[in-house]
Amino acid sequence: MAGYGWISFTTDYGTFDGFVAACHGTIARIAPDVRVIDVTHHVPPADVARGAAVLAQTAPYLPVSVHVVVVDPGVGTSRRGLVVATPGGLLVGPDNGALIWAAEALGGIDAVYELSNKDWLLGDVSRTFHGRDVFAPAAAHLALGATPADAGPEIDPETLVRLPDPVVTVGDGWIEAEVITVDRFGNVQLAAGGDALAGLGPDLVVNGNVRARRGATFAEVGPGELLVYEDSAGHVAIAVNNGRAVVVLSVRPGDTIRLTERVQP
Amino acid sequence: MAGYGWISFTTDYGTFDGFVAACHGTIARIAPDVRVIDVTHHVPPADVARGAAVLAQTAPYLPVSVHVVVVDPGVGTSRRGLVVATPGGLLVGPDNGALIWAAEALGGIDAVYELSNKDWLLGDVSRTFHGRDVFAPAAAHLALGATPADAGPEIDPETLVRLPDPVVTVGDGWIEAEVITVDRFGNVQLAAGGDALAGLGPDLVVNGNVRARRGATFAEVGPGELLVYEDSAGHVAIAVNNGRAVVVLSVRPGDTIRLTERVQP
Amino acid sequence: MAGYGWISFTTDYGTFDGFVAACHGTIARIAPDVRVIDVTHHVPPADVARGAAVLAQTAPYLPVSVHVVVVDPGVGTSRRGLVVATPGGLLVGPDNGALIWAAEALGGIDAVYELSNKDWLLGDVSRTFHGRDVFAPAAAHLALGATPADAGPEIDPETLVRLPDPVVTVGDGWIEAEVITVDRFGNVQLAAGGDALAGLGPDLVVNGNVRARRGATFAEVGPGELLVYEDSAGHVAIAVNNGRAVVVLSVRPGDTIRLTERVQP
Repeated sequence: MAGYGWISFTTDYGTFDGFVAACHGTIARIAPDVRVIDVTHHVPPADVARGAAVLAQTAPYLPVSVHVVVVDPGVGTSRRGLVVATPGGLLVGPDNGALIWAAEALGGIDAVYELSNKDWLLGDVSRTFHGRDVFAPAAAHLALGATPADAGPEIDPETLVRLPDPVVTVGDGWIEAEVITVDRFGNVQLAAGGDALAGLGPDLVVNGNVRARRGATFAEVGPGELLVYEDSAGHVAIAVNNGRAVVVLSVRPGDTIRLTERVQP
Repeated sequence: MAGYGWISFTTDYGTFDGFVAACHGTIARIAPDVRVIDVTHHVPPADVARGAAVLAQTAPYLPVSVHVVVVDPGVGTSRRGLVVATPGGLLVGPDNGALIWAAEALGGIDAVYELSNKDWLLGDVSRTFHGRDVFAPAAAHLALGATPADAGPEIDPETLVRLPDPVVTVGDGWIEAEVITVDRFGNVQLAAGGDALAGLGPDLVVNGNVRARRGATFAEVGPGELLVYEDSAGHVAIAVNNGRAVVVLSVRPGDTIRLTERVQP
Repeated sequence: MAGYGWISFTTDYGTFDGFVAACHGTIARIAPDVRVIDVTHHVPPADVARGAAVLAQTAPYLPVSVHVVVVDPGVGTSRRGLVVATPGGLLVGPDNGALIWAAEALGGIDAVYELSNKDWLLGDVSRTFHGRDVFAPAAAHLALGATPADAGPEIDPETLVRLPDPVVTVGDGWIEAEVITVDRFGNVQLAAGGDALAGLGPDLVVNGNVRARRGATFAEVGPGELLVYEDSAGHVAIAVNNGRAVVVLSVRPGDTIRLTERVQP
């Protein structure tokens, strides 16, 4: 009965077509009082890890919500649809790993249900647009107060499809970690948590040949210089003051970066 | 008195300027309780057919609304502004064909009124921004409960400016149809309705030289292979599994595509 | 107690990351009934003048609001955060000039307060994301009815950081003015107000060598020809009918353009 006043929505649909609006409309027709926060619709097409990362880093700052993620290259196949219950809200989307990092950020998986309630489907379900026909209506019904168990049979969380954990290795005076995201400003975010910085001194070298400084604020280094810091999502990140670290380092998501203490000459 | 709780909004304004927000603000000042669903603001500048197509395919999934379309290369000329009444909601925009396909998708044109009620205009109407000064205020007044006839004199639907119908020809074992849209994923949507596929076998040739298969789901064909299917808007479309059909076929909206049954060798 | 029903939001965050959503979420958690109008999030990174200009031209068309601007290259430094009270609403953002043009458009600065109320901060404030941790919560508290003086100590408006005024010189038969913005359609907006056109005849020359005509509507000139007009924000602007003035003139924001009357040969 309680339900949720908010739905968050993360997709790779872009905003040039009417896909996002059709999902908003579907929600509005079922649950007109619910409000939708768009996390982003610019996940690169089929980039499940990017969708999973952006929601995981954003969801803790949203009101308690039903979070819908549709990055779904397997749409129309036998891949399952899921409703994941967490202490901090519900997650709805395909069983391809897109939901799990956000579930962890919201307190962990309490229970998982296979989304199979035919009463929730939108008329004739298309084979290619489950955002509109399956996931948005499910989220709307859950927001109205349906229980997650209404979605379908409970399933064992151990059976969920998971993304590979990104590489993080922390040694004595060094960190090696995978690039998770590069943001609008060209800042390079690593998989390592900010506490990994505790063991490092102030003078660092990135990938063996680029100098950087540890700090907290972009302006602590000179223009064009590299800063290694804990970013606003709690990750180790690399920025360039007045510049774009992604260009200076020439990396992209999935690459591994090694930070080492610089030995004074 | 009843009015509408929702306004949908489709433009070629982009989201880099404040144009969309000025229209949202105008609506909010007149009708603060009404909610707006943005269909897209990335219609290519002045591409009336694209705006018409995206709204026609999206509107049936929106709540009953006042749908505003502003793709308006003739702004400031003598082209008329319109309010179109349909069984499924109202449409507001310029008389350049932008509204008609959506009207048909919402059940057909019941009546058309020329938007000329000076009481609805926003102060000094600019000659270049009728979205803010004419169409958004009209939509807000209609949402509040004004009747379409309050907009201005009724006009004969036969006098409306119409876009040319896209080419569709269906023969014995072949379809020839114009490309309407290419979506975010590179899928190529044709003007032909999905039922046109009924007469075709499973093995097809696109434009005489590229093999494709009929199916329902992207994964029914191998990576890099072409699928011909009925898309989520009920149109014949062509996709490439794990790829972009628009690149493989090298087509764009307005081009004609021919699908033929493949003769087994 | 009265508060504000609306918050407007202007940033350089883009829409590919979750930054905007995290701010929306922060507002929704503190002030769930307040509604947010996104002005634009595509201000070029760190382009304070662009953010200031777009809000100044849009804010008068929004409902009375708390307007938040986060274009903030100095985030994490000692630059102050501000709450600016005007007759037409409140402004919240960094002390870097981003707020002042909008304040003038809303009736002028009544009072300014330094944003330093620690009770309004979001938990552990990051050093790099004050939109989420400082400015969005402040706006939400102000929308709920906190008074601007609750934000912190009043400060002298004379001490605010200001952007340089754009160049405008009006002579006998000529105007020289800086380009402020180039919009989605390639129209070039100058710093000069539309009344500066009063002294000019109908036949003009741009930058000494390109012919243009004064007029009000794009269609008053032939395809490919230049129109000089007062735009919907009250500025002198230059457009090309069926074309992009920015390409024809090859200018960008900050450049100076000279309009002169054309001497009949």
